[in-house]
Amino acid sequence: MKMAELSAVSGIPVATVKFYLRENLIAAGERTAPNQADYGPAHVARLRLIRSLIEVGGLAVADAREVLAAIDSDLPLQDTFAIAQRTVSGHIDPTGIDHRALDRVDAVLDGWLVSADNPGRLAAARVIESLDEVGHLDARNWLARYAQAALLVAEADIDEIAARSDRAAQAQTVVVGTVLGDALFSAVRRAAQEHVSALRYSAVPSRHHQTP
Amino acid sequence: MKMAELSAVSGIPVATVKFYLRENLIAAGERTAPNQADYGPAHVARLRLIRSLIEVGGLAVADAREVLAAIDSDLPLQDTFAIAQRTVSGHIDPTGIDHRALDRVDAVLDGWLVSADNPGRLAAARVIESLDEVGHLDARNWLARYAQAALLVAEADIDEIAARSDRAAQAQTVVVGTVLGDALFSAVRRAAQEHVSALRYSAVPSRHHQTP
Repeated sequence: MKMAELSAVSGIPVATVKFYLRENLIAAGERTAPNQADYGPAHVARLRLIRSLIEVGGLAVADAREVLAAIDSDLPLQDTFAIAQRTVSGHIDPTGIDHRALDRVDAVLDGWLVSADNPGRLAAARVIESLDEVGHLDARNWLARYAQAALLVAEADIDEIAARSDRAAQAQTVVVGTVLGDALFSAVRRAAQEHVSALRYSAVPSRHHQTP
Repeated sequence: MKMAELSAVSGIPVATVKFYLRENLIAAGERTAPNQADYGPAHVARLRLIRSLIEVGGLAVADAREVLAAIDSDLPLQDTFAIAQRTVSGHIDPTGIDHRALDRVDAVLDGWLVSADNPGRLAAARVIESLDEVGHLDARNWLARYAQAALLVAEADIDEIAARSDRAAQAQTVVVGTVLGDALFSAVRRAAQEHVSALRYSAVPSRHHQTP
């Protein structure tokens, strides 16, 4: 198909498709004339994946390029996981992290198989440090309950990956799951907060979306 | 204390403190001379809260101003909750959301007390729509497992709020918990992913932070 059709089928404006081409997020089409190229279903699929990562997952273009390269590579799945995790976590300088906060995170994650440079371990310590500064009541207990919930989420994540049949599909699920999983969980958490708080305080929302 | 001491005690550079003053994120100090003002412990506490929301929670300055105003107000706690949720969720146009995706979210949240315009309900539908587009395997089952975990997290959140003694402290916990809770959960999720995946595939991380 030509550029105009690629844009129509994927629902992405021509200017945006051209931008992704220039940024090497998608492969060039097969040249059919000096000023024309032919695109196939793989281009459509890739465009949808890019939109998902950037528009819904909130990745920067450079970060999207990095995780797409990891999908295309033949890196072991664990390495793809590590790249995806680093990309969504941003850079955290381990030397800037308070040791006591790190100790408290490690105490909660006791027995977990987690490497010292896991971006989540460092990021959690940074949040705990910040909660201490603002005088949050009981960050350790809060963290412990989050850790229990996170195990359920991680089990669901790994099951989704394991259900895929080949390496390429698994790598894509690793990336999509890592990037969109944060957005999905944050979203569901807000619905759960309203639900639990309504139950606790018997305040039924005025615009409940389900009829009683 | 004077500006220099306020900066030293809070650990925030003078230029940044002045920026927050100009942006009305903190109250002006008590004027003691034409070019000098006096600041107290409340200023230090407020500065730490701002740093937590902006630097760790990733809020924009305008969003930080909005949630700080909600803390300072005497709005009912549920309204403060709604403001905090909206601020971290960004604007989502309900008319742009696919109805089938929304139906699938509602099916999973069946029986939850959630208003139609809960930002999490809309955001979850947007993620589900995007997962469908990229051909994610079984988004509904994944969502259902996330919802179970989100209930645990929401219980922990509401318990933290309920443990506070007065309205001002509760409102601050609502805001801090909503903003930093996303960051904390995402962090713990990454550690849990590494742990579950190492257990599942017997791949012990090479740089485990705990001695065996």
